[in-house]
Amino acid sequence: MKQLFAEFFGTFWLVFGGCGSAIFAAAFPELGIGFAGVALAFGLTVLTMAYAVGHISGGHFNPAVSFGLWAGGKFEAKYLLGYIIAQLIGALAAAACLYLIITNKAGFESVGGFAANGFGDLSPDGYSITAALIAEFLLTAFFLLIILGSTNERAPKGFAPIAIGLGLTLIHLISIPITNTSVNPARSTSQALFAGSEYTAQLWLFWLAPIAGAIVAGIIHKALFDKE
Amino acid sequence: MKQLFAEFFGTFWLVFGGCGSAIFAAAFPELGIGFAGVALAFGLTVLTMAYAVGHISGGHFNPAVSFGLWAGGKFEAKYLLGYIIAQLIGALAAAACLYLIITNKAGFESVGGFAANGFGDLSPDGYSITAALIAEFLLTAFFLLIILGSTNERAPKGFAPIAIGLGLTLIHLISIPITNTSVNPARSTSQALFAGSEYTAQLWLFWLAPIAGAIVAGIIHKALFDKE
Amino acid sequence: MKQLFAEFFGTFWLVFGGCGSAIFAAAFPELGIGFAGVALAFGLTVLTMAYAVGHISGGHFNPAVSFGLWAGGKFEAKYLLGYIIAQLIGALAAAACLYLIITNKAGFESVGGFAANGFGDLSPDGYSITAALIAEFLLTAFFLLIILGSTNERAPKGFAPIAIGLGLTLIHLISIPITNTSVNPARSTSQALFAGSEYTAQLWLFWLAPIAGAIVAGIIHKALFDKE
Amino acid sequence: MKQLFAEFFGTFWLVFGGCGSAIFAAAFPELGIGFAGVALAFGLTVLTMAYAVGHISGGHFNPAVSFGLWAGGKFEAKYLLGYIIAQLIGALAAAACLYLIITNKAGFESVGGFAANGFGDLSPDGYSITAALIAEFLLTAFFLLIILGSTNERAPKGFAPIAIGLGLTLIHLISIPITNTSVNPARSTSQALFAGSEYTAQLWLFWLAPIAGAIVAGIIHKALFDKE
Repeated sequence: MKQLFAEFFGTFWLVFGGCGSAIFAAAFPELGIGFAGVALAFGLTVLTMAYAVGHISGGHFNPAVSFGLWAGGKFEAKYLLGYIIAQLIGALAAAACLYLIITNKAGFESVGGFAANGFGDLSPDGYSITAALIAEFLLTAFFLLIILGSTNERAPKGFAPIAIGLGLTLIHLISIPITNTSVNPARSTSQALFAGSEYTAQLWLFWLAPIAGAIVAGIIHKALFDKE
Repeated sequence: MKQLFAEFFGTFWLVFGGCGSAIFAAAFPELGIGFAGVALAFGLTVLTMAYAVGHISGGHFNPAVSFGLWAGGKFEAKYLLGYIIAQLIGALAAAACLYLIITNKAGFESVGGFAANGFGDLSPDGYSITAALIAEFLLTAFFLLIILGSTNERAPKGFAPIAIGLGLTLIHLISIPITNTSVNPARSTSQALFAGSEYTAQLWLFWLAPIAGAIVAGIIHKALFDKE
Repeated sequence: MKQLFAEFFGTFWLVFGGCGSAIFAAAFPELGIGFAGVALAFGLTVLTMAYAVGHISGGHFNPAVSFGLWAGGKFEAKYLLGYIIAQLIGALAAAACLYLIITNKAGFESVGGFAANGFGDLSPDGYSITAALIAEFLLTAFFLLIILGSTNERAPKGFAPIAIGLGLTLIHLISIPITNTSVNPARSTSQALFAGSEYTAQLWLFWLAPIAGAIVAGIIHKALFDKE
Repeated sequence: MKQLFAEFFGTFWLVFGGCGSAIFAAAFPELGIGFAGVALAFGLTVLTMAYAVGHISGGHFNPAVSFGLWAGGKFEAKYLLGYIIAQLIGALAAAACLYLIITNKAGFESVGGFAANGFGDLSPDGYSITAALIAEFLLTAFFLLIILGSTNERAPKGFAPIAIGLGLTLIHLISIPITNTSVNPARSTSQALFAGSEYTAQLWLFWLAPIAGAIVAGIIHKALFDKE
C-alpha cells in the first residue's frame, strides 16, 4: 500500500512539476525558461522523488517504466495494474491542480494545449505520425536502458536517480519539438483529458510507442547486459 | 550556538544568492539569466551550504523547513524559535548587502520589487490569491517530502543535498511567474521589508501557506513513509 | 561481444541525443534550447550511458577516447579496432534515425549542416583551420585528462560519469561556435556523411586533432599523475 | 612537483573554459549561451578538474583559495608561493591560447574586454568600486566556506567537487553584471594583461578583495565550524 502512495506522489510531482513549468513559465516574455527549462524540470521531478521515495516503490512514476522493468525481469506482473492505477490517479490529480491554478490567472481564457502530447497538426513543430512513433519508441527504449543499467548491481550505488532524472531531461531536450515529449502514458493521459478531444484521439500512440519501446529495452537488457 | 551560526550563514547565502541573481542578472539585456538562471541559483545556494554546514545544523535555512521537520518528528520543538530567529537575521543581513550593492549601480533609482513575493497585482504574471495559496502550499509540501525522504536512513547516503537543492530549483522553474516563488517565509520577509508596504501587506500568505504545507507533509511522511 | 554492444548503444545515444537536440530543438523560435541546451544534451548522453553500461565496456563511445586510454595504459591495443567499428556503426545508425525523423517534418527541404563539424566556411562563426586544430586538440586533451583522472583509483568512487559527462557539456559550451564541437571522430563521421561532400572533405581534421590530443593527454597522465 | 603540474593544468582549464565560453559563445546571435552558460562553464571547469586532479594537489586553481585554506589551517604557508606561481602560469598560458584562437576568426578586429574583470566604467552594468569590493569580498568568503565545509571530514565523502564547482557557477549567476566575476586573482590577471592598461589599472581590487574575503572565511570556519 505504501508503494502505491509513493507512486501516486511521484507521478503527481512529475506532472505538476514538468507540465506546470511548461504551462506557467516556458513562454513568459523575455525571462521565460523555454524548452531547456522545461526539460530540466521534468528531469528534476524524477531525480528528487527517486531519492525521496525510490527506496519505497522503486520510483517508476510511469506505466512504460513499470512495463519495461517487468520485461527486464525486475518487477512482478501482479503489481503492474496497481502501480499503473496509482500513477494515473496521481497524474490526474496533478492536472486538476494545474487547472485550478491556471484558471486563477488574470485574463485566463483557455488551457490551450495544456502541455499535452501530439503529432501531425498537434506536434509543436509539425512532425508526422511516423516521426512521433520512431521518436517515442527510441527515447523510451533508451530511458529503460538507462534505468535498468544504472540500477544494476554492478553500477555505482546511489547514483541511479541522477542518471535517470537527467536522462529524462535529455529526452526532453531532444524531442519537445516533435511530440511535446511523452515517454510516459500517464503524463499524456492526464493532460489530454483537459486539453480536449483532438488530443485524446491521439492518446493511443503515447501508450503504444512508449510501452513497446520499454518492453524491447527490457528484453535487450536482460539478454545482453544483465548477467555475466 | 554553532548551529545558529550555520543557519545564519546558510540563510544569508540563500537570500544573497537567490534574490541577488534575480536582482542583478535575470533581466540583463540579451545575456541575462532569466527565470531558469534564478531557479538554478536558488537551488545551488541550498545544495552548496547543505554540503558545507548541513552536518552542523541540518541545513534548514527556512522556517517552513524547520516546522516541517518538527512535524515529521526529526527536529525538537525547543529549537524552533532559535533557528527561526537565526534564519531571519541571516535573510535580513543578506537583503541589506543586496541593497548596498544595487544602490551603488550607475543610474540607480529604486529597488523596485527587490525579488519580493506577491499575489494579485504583485504576482509576476497576475495570479490570484487562490492560485498563490494552492501553489505555495503544494510546493512547500513536496519540498518537505523530498527533504524527509532523501534524508531518511533508507535513502542513499550523501545525496540529499543534491535532491534538496535541485528540488528548490525545480520549485522555482514552476512557480516564479505565480508568486515569484517563496516556500520560505524568511526569504519573503527580508525582501518585503525593503520592497515596501504593498509587499509587507501580503507577507502573511508567505508565512501561512509554506508552513501549513510543510506541516502537512511532515505528518504524511511520518504516517506513510518513515517506518517499516 | 557485450562490450561491443555497449559501445554501439552508447555511441548511438551520444549522436542521437547530442546531434538530435541540435537538429530538432536548438533553434526553435523563442523557446529553443540554444547552444547551452545542446551542450547539456551531449554531456548527458555520456553521463547517462556511462552509468548504464560503463561497468560493461568502460563507456568510451568515442574513438579518440579509446586511443587516449590506450596511450594512458588503461586499454589494450588489440581491442581498439573492434571498439572503433562498434562506435562508428552506432553513430551511423543514430544519424540514419535522425534523418528518418527530420524528413517526416512538415515542410522538410534539406538536412542542412545536420550538426556536422567544420572549419573555415563551415565553422558556425567563421574560425579558421588553425583555430579548429588548436581547439579540437586542446579540448580533447583535457577531456582525456578528466577521464583518466576521475577514473583513477585515488579519485572518489562512482563520480566519474558526472565529471566526464559534464566535462563534455563544458567542452561544448566553449567551442560550438568554433567547429560545432567534435572531440569525437565517430560523431563527426556520421553527420558529415549525411551533410554532404563539403563536410566529408574536412573530416580528416576531426580524426587527426582529437586523436592527437587524446594520445598526448594519455602520455601526460601516465608520466605525471598516474603513479606515486 | 606533480602538485604544481596539477595546479597548472587546473588553472589553465578554469581560464580556458570559463573565459573561453564567455569570449566565443556567450553572445552568439540567437543561440548564444548568455551569462547562465558562462556561469555553468566556470563551475564545470572546477568540478571536472577537482575530480581529475583534486586528489593530487587539493584542486585550488586560485590564489585566493590557497590563501583561504592556509587561513583555515588546511594548507601550509611554505607551499603558497609555488602554488600561486603555477596558477598564474596556467592562467597566462590559457589566455594566450584563447588569443590564438580568437585572432583566427574571420573579421577579427580586437579582443575587446577579453572577459577581464572591472568596476565603474569597466563593470558590465555600471557598478561602482564600492559595489565591486563588497561583492568580491562576500562571494569569495562564501566560496571558501563552501570549500572548507564540504571538504571537512564530517561532510559526505566524494561530493565536495560538486558543491565547490556548482558554488562557482552560483557565484557567476549572481555577479557577472557587477564585475564580470573574479573571486580569482589568477583569472583576473591573465585576462587583464591581454585586455589592456585600463584593466590592469584595476587589478589590485581583484587581488585584494578575494584574498581578504578568503582569509576572513578561513578564520570563521576554523573558529566556528571546524572542531567539536
